[in-house]
Amino acid sequence: MAPRPHDERVADTLRRLREDVDAWVATAAPGGSPYLVPLSFLWDGETLLLSTAARTPTARNLVAAPEVRIGVGPTRDVVLIHGSVTVLRPDELSAAEGDAFAEKTGFDPRTLRDYLYFRVRPLRVQAWREVDELPGRDIVI
Amino acid sequence: MAPRPHDERVADTLRRLREDVDAWVATAAPGGSPYLVPLSFLWDGETLLLSTAARTPTARNLVAAPEVRIGVGPTRDVVLIHGSVTVLRPDELSAAEGDAFAEKTGFDPRTLRDYLYFRVRPLRVQAWREVDELPGRDIVI
Repeated sequence: MAPRPHDERVADTLRRLREDVDAWVATAAPGGSPYLVPLSFLWDGETLLLSTAARTPTARNLVAAPEVRIGVGPTRDVVLIHGSVTVLRPDELSAAEGDAFAEKTGFDPRTLRDYLYFRVRPLRVQAWREVDELPGRDIVI
Repeated sequence: MAPRPHDERVADTLRRLREDVDAWVATAAPGGSPYLVPLSFLWDGETLLLSTAARTPTARNLVAAPEVRIGVGPTRDVVLIHGSVTVLRPDELSAAEGDAFAEKTGFDPRTLRDYLYFRVRPLRVQAWREVDELPGRDIVI
């Protein structure tokens, strides 16, 4: 297969953001220690919404420094997102968004103790499958 | 399915380390900025061997701070490795290991300009599929 043109990468990326349930979420502690964990997410057309317990390394890292790298898809069909993060308490989320998150991910942080939400705004998005798609991997969604 | 006992998780993890080609590699810049990229790897029974161009963020992060988090497998069957890293120039690798890396990954950094190898020694290994496997996810391989 030939490398996908930009518009096809955008369409594939948006489909994956709508339909995939989990993503790899990479954060860093202020001292520079990396952390990585899979988390479920909800895409609203502009941002990804994540949630995890406030005590976890991912939550503590994002509260301390609101920067994240997210990988969606298998390693030979990746969407890579560099994003800035806004931390939200459950009571800061609209009921509709809380419901949508619970429906998509299968868990409802509003019913759990000491969970936080994290809204990720993509600053840079890349999409590629194999080495031949590395040129042109930066896309605008 | 019931949560897998420790020995089954170890066997599944070792099989994945031998047979999977790619991993998600999370590093951090000294200032605390996270980075994430999929890379191919070779498992020798004790360590993972990675390689990427010396100019990439992953290589620069690992040269500056030899700590990595690696995710292998899909998000619902993960192996998560926290590892310490030794940086190797191509001429520091044995011919046999260089050949094995090229055969497994499909590319040979010895033939490319300014590539480095990174030997990852696992300090902590976790394996889980779904939420019911979170207890007991720390394994000894």
